[in-house]
Amino acid sequence: MNSIDLEPVTFAAACEMRSLGDGTFTADLRQEWSIGKHPHGGFLLALLARTAIRALAEAGEPPVDPLAVSAEFLHAPALGPVLLRADIRKIGRRVTVVAVSLEQRGRSCVEARVTAGRLALRPPVWNDVPALPLEPPPNAVPLSGKTSEGLFHLAQGCDVRVDPATAGYLVGRKDDPPRLRLWARPRHGEVDPYFALLAGDLNPPVVFNLGRTGWAPTVQLTALLRTRPHPGWLRIQVGCRVIQEGWFDSDAVVVDSQGRIVCQARQLALSPLP
Amino acid sequence: MNSIDLEPVTFAAACEMRSLGDGTFTADLRQEWSIGKHPHGGFLLALLARTAIRALAEAGEPPVDPLAVSAEFLHAPALGPVLLRADIRKIGRRVTVVAVSLEQRGRSCVEARVTAGRLALRPPVWNDVPALPLEPPPNAVPLSGKTSEGLFHLAQGCDVRVDPATAGYLVGRKDDPPRLRLWARPRHGEVDPYFALLAGDLNPPVVFNLGRTGWAPTVQLTALLRTRPHPGWLRIQVGCRVIQEGWFDSDAVVVDSQGRIVCQARQLALSPLP
Repeated sequence: MNSIDLEPVTFAAACEMRSLGDGTFTADLRQEWSIGKHPHGGFLLALLARTAIRALAEAGEPPVDPLAVSAEFLHAPALGPVLLRADIRKIGRRVTVVAVSLEQRGRSCVEARVTAGRLALRPPVWNDVPALPLEPPPNAVPLSGKTSEGLFHLAQGCDVRVDPATAGYLVGRKDDPPRLRLWARPRHGEVDPYFALLAGDLNPPVVFNLGRTGWAPTVQLTALLRTRPHPGWLRIQVGCRVIQEGWFDSDAVVVDSQGRIVCQARQLALSPLP
Repeated sequence: MNSIDLEPVTFAAACEMRSLGDGTFTADLRQEWSIGKHPHGGFLLALLARTAIRALAEAGEPPVDPLAVSAEFLHAPALGPVLLRADIRKIGRRVTVVAVSLEQRGRSCVEARVTAGRLALRPPVWNDVPALPLEPPPNAVPLSGKTSEGLFHLAQGCDVRVDPATAGYLVGRKDDPPRLRLWARPRHGEVDPYFALLAGDLNPPVVFNLGRTGWAPTVQLTALLRTRPHPGWLRIQVGCRVIQEGWFDSDAVVVDSQGRIVCQARQLALSPLP
């Protein structure tokens, strides 16, 4: 092991891929961007979005950003090498669509569609921004080390803090509403649209607040990116409409330090039993 | 023209398809399920979901329901015949995933992923249901005939009524919040999960309330189905987080007559200019 291996891999470095020149790419899923032995779902989403944008660049298209990323999680990939396969489905004036799959040992693990275009930059004509403090309060609890889902290795590259007033599960309560507030920023470098995608899936599962702790696998996740995040903390509000027979939805709104909505991410997931 | 052609085509009949026996199907996009000359987006979503479930049945799988449908709209199809192509991506104990595309004249128009499984039936352990009257109020405005998007042909098969208190655009106001309340039910037969999918996209574009009327094409739409709807009116609450440089999100929650959330549908769409 050389000294490089002792440095935590930054988000940007962990998202790097190697082009095989034919619309396929290889990448390594690193422990630093996993929880327990599971590569993080939001990280996979960011990697798939980067693959789509990279494939468009290699096809000679002008620079674009991801606007929507929709993914189905078929099989949880393991840490280690993966093949990424991009297939450009439409190139348009305002909207371009790329299908991307992440394969491991010949098996498709995650399949996504990335809708790309130009992120809006001018101020919104309408917005409905959840009220959240700009920075985590002093009593916010850092996510790190052991969690109900396994070791939170992401803490090496991400500073994530949860508002304890919204996380009854932290003190053993089992009847808090499935709603969370948290703050996140990368430990190295600044926020960008890919980190905003990650932020849309950084929260502990909202079902923890009902005593349903453990691994809560995402089945379908769609994230909309709305503008480029300004440097600083991202604030995240997570809600849920229905928990029923082990199925739950989880809906995160991510707001940047300028009070602009940067990401809306809703997922359907399977809950551990109480 | 024979007398059959004078009868409006019911939702169930309009969703019928003919199997070519190899995972492909043909169907006809009918004027009755269009707005102006545009086949309705929610109708297309329902058709794609039915194609996925039908393909699973033809592959010998036990009956399942759609749980999530995620679609990218690449090109608006015209009325008339289409080819539907299903590709089973995963068969699992709780979750099965089918990719479905709708093609016309050799061009892919809509590409969807259908996550299928068993819809929850037992009462939720948590739900957050928007407060909406069970039935449309007496002053609710039926959607019919000419609208800013074109002729609302769906009125032949669907009874859709909008709460005028939430639809300032109906009386020429241009500064109401982009939020709507409406009610919908089929004119023939009863509600089912496919009609609940349609209901998630039945509302006039929320940007109408800001004076931005006209065609507002959906770019990406993901709908979660949560339980089988009980007979009666579906009530729909639609909201929006951000309208910015012509892009807007629209988020519909569909509630059945028993007060259960049956569908959550969020889309990214392009707004006409004011």
